[in-house]
Amino acid sequence: MFVFRLPGFRQLLLRCNVVTQFLHHQYYKGMKLNPSRAGVWLIGAYGDIATTLITGKIAIQEGLASSAGLATEMSPMNLLNICALDELIIGGHDIFSSTVKEQAEAVCDRSRTFSYPLLKQIEQQLEKIGQDIEVLPELNWEFTQPGEYLPSLVELCNKFRHLLKVFASKHNLDHIVVVNIASAETFIPLTAAHENIDEFVKLIDRDRKDQVSPSMLYAYAAFMENYSYLNFTPNVGASIGALQVLAVENGVPFYGNDGKTGETLVKTALAPMFAARHLKVMSWEGTNLLGNGDGKTLSEPENCKNKIQNKAAALPQILGYPVHAGVDINYVPSLGDWKTAWDLIHFKGFLDVPMTMQFTWQGCDSILAAPLVLDMVRLMEFAHRQGEHGPMHHLACFFKNPIGVGEHNFHKQYEMLIDYAAKHLTQSQ
Amino acid sequence: MFVFRLPGFRQLLLRCNVVTQFLHHQYYKGMKLNPSRAGVWLIGAYGDIATTLITGKIAIQEGLASSAGLATEMSPMNLLNICALDELIIGGHDIFSSTVKEQAEAVCDRSRTFSYPLLKQIEQQLEKIGQDIEVLPELNWEFTQPGEYLPSLVELCNKFRHLLKVFASKHNLDHIVVVNIASAETFIPLTAAHENIDEFVKLIDRDRKDQVSPSMLYAYAAFMENYSYLNFTPNVGASIGALQVLAVENGVPFYGNDGKTGETLVKTALAPMFAARHLKVMSWEGTNLLGNGDGKTLSEPENCKNKIQNKAAALPQILGYPVHAGVDINYVPSLGDWKTAWDLIHFKGFLDVPMTMQFTWQGCDSILAAPLVLDMVRLMEFAHRQGEHGPMHHLACFFKNPIGVGEHNFHKQYEMLIDYAAKHLTQSQ
Amino acid sequence: MFVFRLPGFRQLLLRCNVVTQFLHHQYYKGMKLNPSRAGVWLIGAYGDIATTLITGKIAIQEGLASSAGLATEMSPMNLLNICALDELIIGGHDIFSSTVKEQAEAVCDRSRTFSYPLLKQIEQQLEKIGQDIEVLPELNWEFTQPGEYLPSLVELCNKFRHLLKVFASKHNLDHIVVVNIASAETFIPLTAAHENIDEFVKLIDRDRKDQVSPSMLYAYAAFMENYSYLNFTPNVGASIGALQVLAVENGVPFYGNDGKTGETLVKTALAPMFAARHLKVMSWEGTNLLGNGDGKTLSEPENCKNKIQNKAAALPQILGYPVHAGVDINYVPSLGDWKTAWDLIHFKGFLDVPMTMQFTWQGCDSILAAPLVLDMVRLMEFAHRQGEHGPMHHLACFFKNPIGVGEHNFHKQYEMLIDYAAKHLTQSQ
Amino acid sequence: MFVFRLPGFRQLLLRCNVVTQFLHHQYYKGMKLNPSRAGVWLIGAYGDIATTLITGKIAIQEGLASSAGLATEMSPMNLLNICALDELIIGGHDIFSSTVKEQAEAVCDRSRTFSYPLLKQIEQQLEKIGQDIEVLPELNWEFTQPGEYLPSLVELCNKFRHLLKVFASKHNLDHIVVVNIASAETFIPLTAAHENIDEFVKLIDRDRKDQVSPSMLYAYAAFMENYSYLNFTPNVGASIGALQVLAVENGVPFYGNDGKTGETLVKTALAPMFAARHLKVMSWEGTNLLGNGDGKTLSEPENCKNKIQNKAAALPQILGYPVHAGVDINYVPSLGDWKTAWDLIHFKGFLDVPMTMQFTWQGCDSILAAPLVLDMVRLMEFAHRQGEHGPMHHLACFFKNPIGVGEHNFHKQYEMLIDYAAKHLTQSQ
Repeated sequence: MFVFRLPGFRQLLLRCNVVTQFLHHQYYKGMKLNPSRAGVWLIGAYGDIATTLITGKIAIQEGLASSAGLATEMSPMNLLNICALDELIIGGHDIFSSTVKEQAEAVCDRSRTFSYPLLKQIEQQLEKIGQDIEVLPELNWEFTQPGEYLPSLVELCNKFRHLLKVFASKHNLDHIVVVNIASAETFIPLTAAHENIDEFVKLIDRDRKDQVSPSMLYAYAAFMENYSYLNFTPNVGASIGALQVLAVENGVPFYGNDGKTGETLVKTALAPMFAARHLKVMSWEGTNLLGNGDGKTLSEPENCKNKIQNKAAALPQILGYPVHAGVDINYVPSLGDWKTAWDLIHFKGFLDVPMTMQFTWQGCDSILAAPLVLDMVRLMEFAHRQGEHGPMHHLACFFKNPIGVGEHNFHKQYEMLIDYAAKHLTQSQ
Repeated sequence: MFVFRLPGFRQLLLRCNVVTQFLHHQYYKGMKLNPSRAGVWLIGAYGDIATTLITGKIAIQEGLASSAGLATEMSPMNLLNICALDELIIGGHDIFSSTVKEQAEAVCDRSRTFSYPLLKQIEQQLEKIGQDIEVLPELNWEFTQPGEYLPSLVELCNKFRHLLKVFASKHNLDHIVVVNIASAETFIPLTAAHENIDEFVKLIDRDRKDQVSPSMLYAYAAFMENYSYLNFTPNVGASIGALQVLAVENGVPFYGNDGKTGETLVKTALAPMFAARHLKVMSWEGTNLLGNGDGKTLSEPENCKNKIQNKAAALPQILGYPVHAGVDINYVPSLGDWKTAWDLIHFKGFLDVPMTMQFTWQGCDSILAAPLVLDMVRLMEFAHRQGEHGPMHHLACFFKNPIGVGEHNFHKQYEMLIDYAAKHLTQSQ
Repeated sequence: MFVFRLPGFRQLLLRCNVVTQFLHHQYYKGMKLNPSRAGVWLIGAYGDIATTLITGKIAIQEGLASSAGLATEMSPMNLLNICALDELIIGGHDIFSSTVKEQAEAVCDRSRTFSYPLLKQIEQQLEKIGQDIEVLPELNWEFTQPGEYLPSLVELCNKFRHLLKVFASKHNLDHIVVVNIASAETFIPLTAAHENIDEFVKLIDRDRKDQVSPSMLYAYAAFMENYSYLNFTPNVGASIGALQVLAVENGVPFYGNDGKTGETLVKTALAPMFAARHLKVMSWEGTNLLGNGDGKTLSEPENCKNKIQNKAAALPQILGYPVHAGVDINYVPSLGDWKTAWDLIHFKGFLDVPMTMQFTWQGCDSILAAPLVLDMVRLMEFAHRQGEHGPMHHLACFFKNPIGVGEHNFHKQYEMLIDYAAKHLTQSQ
Repeated sequence: MFVFRLPGFRQLLLRCNVVTQFLHHQYYKGMKLNPSRAGVWLIGAYGDIATTLITGKIAIQEGLASSAGLATEMSPMNLLNICALDELIIGGHDIFSSTVKEQAEAVCDRSRTFSYPLLKQIEQQLEKIGQDIEVLPELNWEFTQPGEYLPSLVELCNKFRHLLKVFASKHNLDHIVVVNIASAETFIPLTAAHENIDEFVKLIDRDRKDQVSPSMLYAYAAFMENYSYLNFTPNVGASIGALQVLAVENGVPFYGNDGKTGETLVKTALAPMFAARHLKVMSWEGTNLLGNGDGKTLSEPENCKNKIQNKAAALPQILGYPVHAGVDINYVPSLGDWKTAWDLIHFKGFLDVPMTMQFTWQGCDSILAAPLVLDMVRLMEFAHRQGEHGPMHHLACFFKNPIGVGEHNFHKQYEMLIDYAAKHLTQSQ
């Protein structure tokens, strides 16, 4: 008289034992006669997230770290015919000059996340990846000085497309996932021109840098090359109608915006509990302290707008009513990449009695973000191979503001991912 | 291009507007030609949970408090043909002499949960309910002094059954839900005799008070009268095989054990987030401070065994691996009914980097527990009218140790309840 | 071989047993042949602090509450010849019309701090005090509507002085302590005129409401009547040079500003520990959530300036170096008078290893503030009887921004109070 | 009209500017014609505290780390004629075989407190210190297996004294401070024999290992060699009357017990605030989670007795009344040396309103402990040169259970240290 509630094939898969997993895996490996060689192009390749992603990917490949943090290493996602980590070829660009090793050592010193002995062991691989990282300060034109020469949007776009072409050809890549993990951009008010691809192209042609942000240009370039675009930042990216249409037309997947790594993750995992118990949330106040480059950028109100907006949407949707929900983002340099968030939840229960819950989240931003990027790169590359295109709604659980998905309840979002995997596993039988 | 993931009738119902809800409700009300009169028998009727339940039920009926805390007042549960609050007739017994008003004022003073002006307004209703509360010290034989005369189990059982008969006949009740909200009992090791109804009856006949606990006797008596039994305590109650069989044979619903109101609620709502992100929980340490009678009883290791055991099961099931998870329960008299729990979650992310989350939960135990009892009474009475019997698995989300359900993920448990409601709503169309 | 470090008479007093205390007390009582009748004039008499002060004072007098929260009820302060609580006569004014009872019930409902049965028992005393509370909306001219008739500063000052005269004469008072517990005022930039009493009087004569704030006018009026002035608010009050000189000339005590009740209290009690251990504080970030009228006023940046400034001064003084110390004040209506502060302290220890401490303070603002006002009223009235005047530096421990005292270490400030009491006790022998 | 409260020479010194400090320092350096060469003998020399102490001492000497954490590097302590860090010669023993470098790398990996590049830079110094660390498993006889050969107490004592002699002679040392930083011992009930030096010597002669613990034997040996003894552990050490007398007779300083590094430090810094405000503490509940060897030992109730006792004494002394104060110590392996403590303080204010404060302390045990040991070694060596002997009461602020000092208020304890320094500075002029 013991009940498990999820019947059918999906449930079976979820519960299948190690042997079955192994067999499945072998089966898929067998299928992949000519293993796809997939590229990952990191925009912001010398940032903390990129550096952590590169270090972690190699460490896991080499058996120097566990697969913790990677959702694609768990059942049922690991049963899909996704790329192995060593099948992903990494390249990218950033706006300043450095080396991967230098950046890795800097992260080491600042964040105490990985150790020097580890870096020593993977020194050669780090150096090799470094050969595919370009320095392109002009591509982040927001930071150029007044008076400085700046190529036109058309020139910049062509430059970026050229880079992708060279990268693909050098490594003989079947596909590239372009990943935006750059800094927060200045807020640009959206107009009708952003909803129409022809109008949008005109903005580029007319070099309207006040209406086209780098994140949009990257997406445009990627789609024109028939590559996938993943936007992990709060920047607008491919979320405007014009670019969504282009992606569908060119048959490529895309998704974003704003990776859900810390406070919002916890918020969207906890709020459903209050909803399910009919505990009326009166106030949900959040304080975010962070000291990395991201924090510095976000401490300027203009750059923070997209972010705060992304964080605000979740609660009313999950709870079903408007909530007094303050979100403070404060720059605290000493914390570095270790984001500390404190939330106070003031809620009413039976007989309208007020009660409180509070939580503190102390996580390292890039350690939390990097594996999500890897997970999504794998899943987008897989989707592309399956002929899927447009917004990848099943990746909603990875984002604060998932494009085209109104559901913010983390657990329901995660079910969407599980359902996606289960559907593909059923089909492949 | 906006997606909601739950398709079909159930989804429609969840989103139906107020007008539709009203029509549904009227429709069902119309169906209920002879509205069922349902009784609720509270074991521990002078305890804080019972007192809060009684006060809250009346306050909501009278429009003096919102319906916060009651899950059955939310869609889709409120679309079922469940009893209105004023259709529930309350009675019960306790082991000491008092009045409902006295107890309500004591809760007022100790816990500052409801106000004297409120009590003033519902004075008469409190008094009326008091007429159905009996004093039966002998029914909690654990607390009797050595040498004191104690009736046999058979006599006690008959006494209790007689009480239920009188209550039913006085109020012309169609059904009674017997609710156990008494104190924690001493741990009794279970034997084969507890799994066989004939053997179990023999234990009663032989007056084996060392093997039959009050919570078992209550369940037995309830089932023999064809009444439902709801066990909100960590006590064994109806969870032994013998009693489960009896319930099924006599066609009555039952469920338990150990209401999920605080720390475990949060734990089972949060742990799935760590699982879904492949964040490896290394330690999950919980400290529970409480100062009510329950806390005093639990501070004695023997009484605490059931509870700690109930709390420990959830994490390994949700996470899929064993976790270092300490649970301390400390008696802190000054806190009264305001339970304060602090949990530290120490987990590993990408590159095996250790990170931490901590939360503090400050809730009033009886304010959290009372509405769950009301919710379940309504749903069990409804189930009984539908001819359902045996363990009510769809109530799993209300319990730390849901009988016969291995799933501890709160969100999946809650889906079971939603599915149950949706199924009944579809059928009734 | 057991050492106590404080030698001499003071130490003896601190350790003297109950018998000695009793004898001392009797001795002083005997001295006070004609017990002084002292008045307390509350500016903001219908606010939460005033209401709590009045309720608490009566409750303690009547033996309905303990003396918790009152520092003057502890040794050695209680050995001084200070007024008994029932020797303090309370009056005051506010800008809106109400009754003490109404306000007390409102506090009851909002803050659940005291109970209706208590209010019932002291109903008559509340009513009696109400007879000495006036409604004077014009005295808070910041809140008057444009176009509305507004008396000149001279008229307002005379009006207020008249009120004090009437109060003194009605109750045959020897002295009055005027207490400012009104709302935060708009920030007024200080000029040379504020440092010179003659220039300041000219500002009043010229009706310069842009340069004279209500808190200054109250202080001016009090001093002109030879009464003490206690400023519990962050408002400027008597801290300008002009008024300090006037107080000294007229021989009256005064003190302020900004009562130290919550986060800053904890901060100035904890920071010395970090200093003493040479633990280098890198960041001390504070978040204050509050929902009372004070919180609403402070949520407007202009009104918040004095407050934030008062909070910022303490850390660099105690630690000896500048610290990254953010202070957020957020208005969270649901919290009412229950202020919740969360502080994160990020500090470096040996080998420059970063570590963290965090604390959450959940206190009721008026419950924390009211007894401090009573303590200081008693001590200022005592000082006045001793012929002391000017700034009462020994009260520094009660303020965020103690006038003329650079020391912010709470423990050293408290020693100043103990030393003051000890000195008076030694002299009186 | 600005007041600082501490008058006289001491105040001047505290405020003296950098120039003055420099001159003083030079003056004292000049005095020290023949700089004393002082030894430090670490019992538990391969433990985390010792390893951290050695690493930090060298790092600071070499300018590779700041002096954070060292109280003796702050005014006025740094104005005393104490040893420079490089004048302290380190030796010691442990019960297992290892090297300093191995231990340092292990701490690196486990606790992420210092970095490999740092270790690389000081490799040679670490190796050199290693030459003075002996392996002596027999000296911690509690951990020997039954049946194993074990020397008598007299033999062990002689062995240890011999080690000290060799160390002194090898390095030409004027004095040695013997430091106990070994693990917690089993609790030994004290008897009259522990209070009398002759009786105590008989216990040694009779090889009564059930009545003489290692920590006592170390103290005895040190005193017999006329060396100082510093007991940082909760073990009994020199606190028994017999050994105190011996120290005085032989003219050597000693002190202990149980370093105050974390939760108790915060407790004794915060409790005075509650006392000074007459906020009545109803409950002060503390939970300590730790995962180092110390934590494992303390998780066994017998070893924990000394510790819990040391932690319990402080509150009633500071507050002046008994308090419900639970202290849990839980072993959580994943935390390693990072101790996490959570305290809930439930207190009553004005009108007996209950309020709460809670804090979380996340500190690395050895990082907090190591500098205190260095501070005290310097101060004890200084005291010895001044001809001082017996219990060093001015070091009370460093201990949970300061021998012979009843004062637990951290701030008053710290004043004792400041007063001591000020007294010596005044005398030296």
